[in-house]
Amino acid sequence: MRIALGIEYDGQPFYGFQTQKQEPTVQSCLEQAISQVANHLVKIICAGRTDTGVSATQQIIHFDTKAERTPRQWILGVNSALHQGVSVLWAKTVDDSFHARFSAISRSYEYRILCRSVRPAIGRHQLTWIRPPLDIQKMQEAAKYLLGKHDFSAFRSSKCQAHNPVRTMYEAEVMIENDQIICYFKANAFLHHMIRNIVGTMLKVGKGERPVEWVEEVLINKDRTQAGMTAPPNGLTFTGVSYPPEFGIPAA
Amino acid sequence: MRIALGIEYDGQPFYGFQTQKQEPTVQSCLEQAISQVANHLVKIICAGRTDTGVSATQQIIHFDTKAERTPRQWILGVNSALHQGVSVLWAKTVDDSFHARFSAISRSYEYRILCRSVRPAIGRHQLTWIRPPLDIQKMQEAAKYLLGKHDFSAFRSSKCQAHNPVRTMYEAEVMIENDQIICYFKANAFLHHMIRNIVGTMLKVGKGERPVEWVEEVLINKDRTQAGMTAPPNGLTFTGVSYPPEFGIPAA
Repeated sequence: MRIALGIEYDGQPFYGFQTQKQEPTVQSCLEQAISQVANHLVKIICAGRTDTGVSATQQIIHFDTKAERTPRQWILGVNSALHQGVSVLWAKTVDDSFHARFSAISRSYEYRILCRSVRPAIGRHQLTWIRPPLDIQKMQEAAKYLLGKHDFSAFRSSKCQAHNPVRTMYEAEVMIENDQIICYFKANAFLHHMIRNIVGTMLKVGKGERPVEWVEEVLINKDRTQAGMTAPPNGLTFTGVSYPPEFGIPAA
Repeated sequence: MRIALGIEYDGQPFYGFQTQKQEPTVQSCLEQAISQVANHLVKIICAGRTDTGVSATQQIIHFDTKAERTPRQWILGVNSALHQGVSVLWAKTVDDSFHARFSAISRSYEYRILCRSVRPAIGRHQLTWIRPPLDIQKMQEAAKYLLGKHDFSAFRSSKCQAHNPVRTMYEAEVMIENDQIICYFKANAFLHHMIRNIVGTMLKVGKGERPVEWVEEVLINKDRTQAGMTAPPNGLTFTGVSYPPEFGIPAA
């Protein structure tokens, strides 16, 4: 039986999503808790791996199990065995053809910037702090160049393992919410560090260090060394994944 | 010279505001950083002490110093020497008659409740989690009984050291913001645990365990044992203090 779970996590206490040498990771905590409820070893697959410090309001994972449990039993059982920095939002039995990563049509991320003169104490693990001024309108204009199908090599980390650097950006918006600036991106998929490199580049435009058109130039030149710095991880949150409707996966 | 500072802090990493045996506290971190910038030992006075786990978006403190520093130097200097969980928002030279605690006319607090079926991972240190349903309208009605001048003994901790249990509640509101319920209170001053005891009592009404009128009954009877449980500290945030306008203290 294949089970899909919706997951929320605070990036701060974890060394990223994927299991590796340093502990804890979101994956290792989830596998441990799910295995305990299933009563056998469980391996999970996620929609999109996130780096150290990156949070998620809606990550989606799947796993196979022989255990007969109701969705409510999965949610309550796994949550009670889980690290407080991770929470199961929902559980659903899915068709065996569902794959959290390969079935995904699109992913969306939010990057939150606190724009004020002094650093934040509250919410500092989910915010990147930038001193004013930031020209939001210019950042909004710059974001438009990213829309559509492009080779995003300019915004790709040197460690990126993707075979193909072409991605389709469906939405790229910059919004204001009180003293925070939210950069929202939705694409079929993202390259490694792609959003953090895009935000680092857009911040150079917002600070007036580069003109709006420079973002298009960077994109066209496909040269990572021309783009802005990689923005810090603690402004980034994975906010949702969409799948073909036949799988019946809840929307974010 | 007397200096006033506006302070933001995340309650999670601290054993409350006031210096005591367990470390770190907000006060000890602030006194250490301010003393470093002033180049002499500094003791601070705050507008209102907060318990372990309680955050503040606008606490106000004052201290006396012989050091000649601009507001900008105080802000940058103290922030660079401070624990990341505390931040100085502004600094102002004030009249010697200003007293962060005794000059205050009113204090306001916010209590945030996340009302959903599963526990939160993100923001869990600034939220109290309650499973639905909660009848917000009944909680809004209950809050009205608290308005005005009352003996708040029913909502007072047994450790409260105030001589007089009479306080004047200027505002008591229950609002909805997405999936969060915000209980907002503004009074001339608050007794120890007063808001957490009020919220614990209002939650009994919201859950349907008691009728709306019960809150008035509890208040009139002045008996702490009749009221609801003390709500957890991690939903509570100190949001502001007001002073007579002649002191020129920035509003929250």
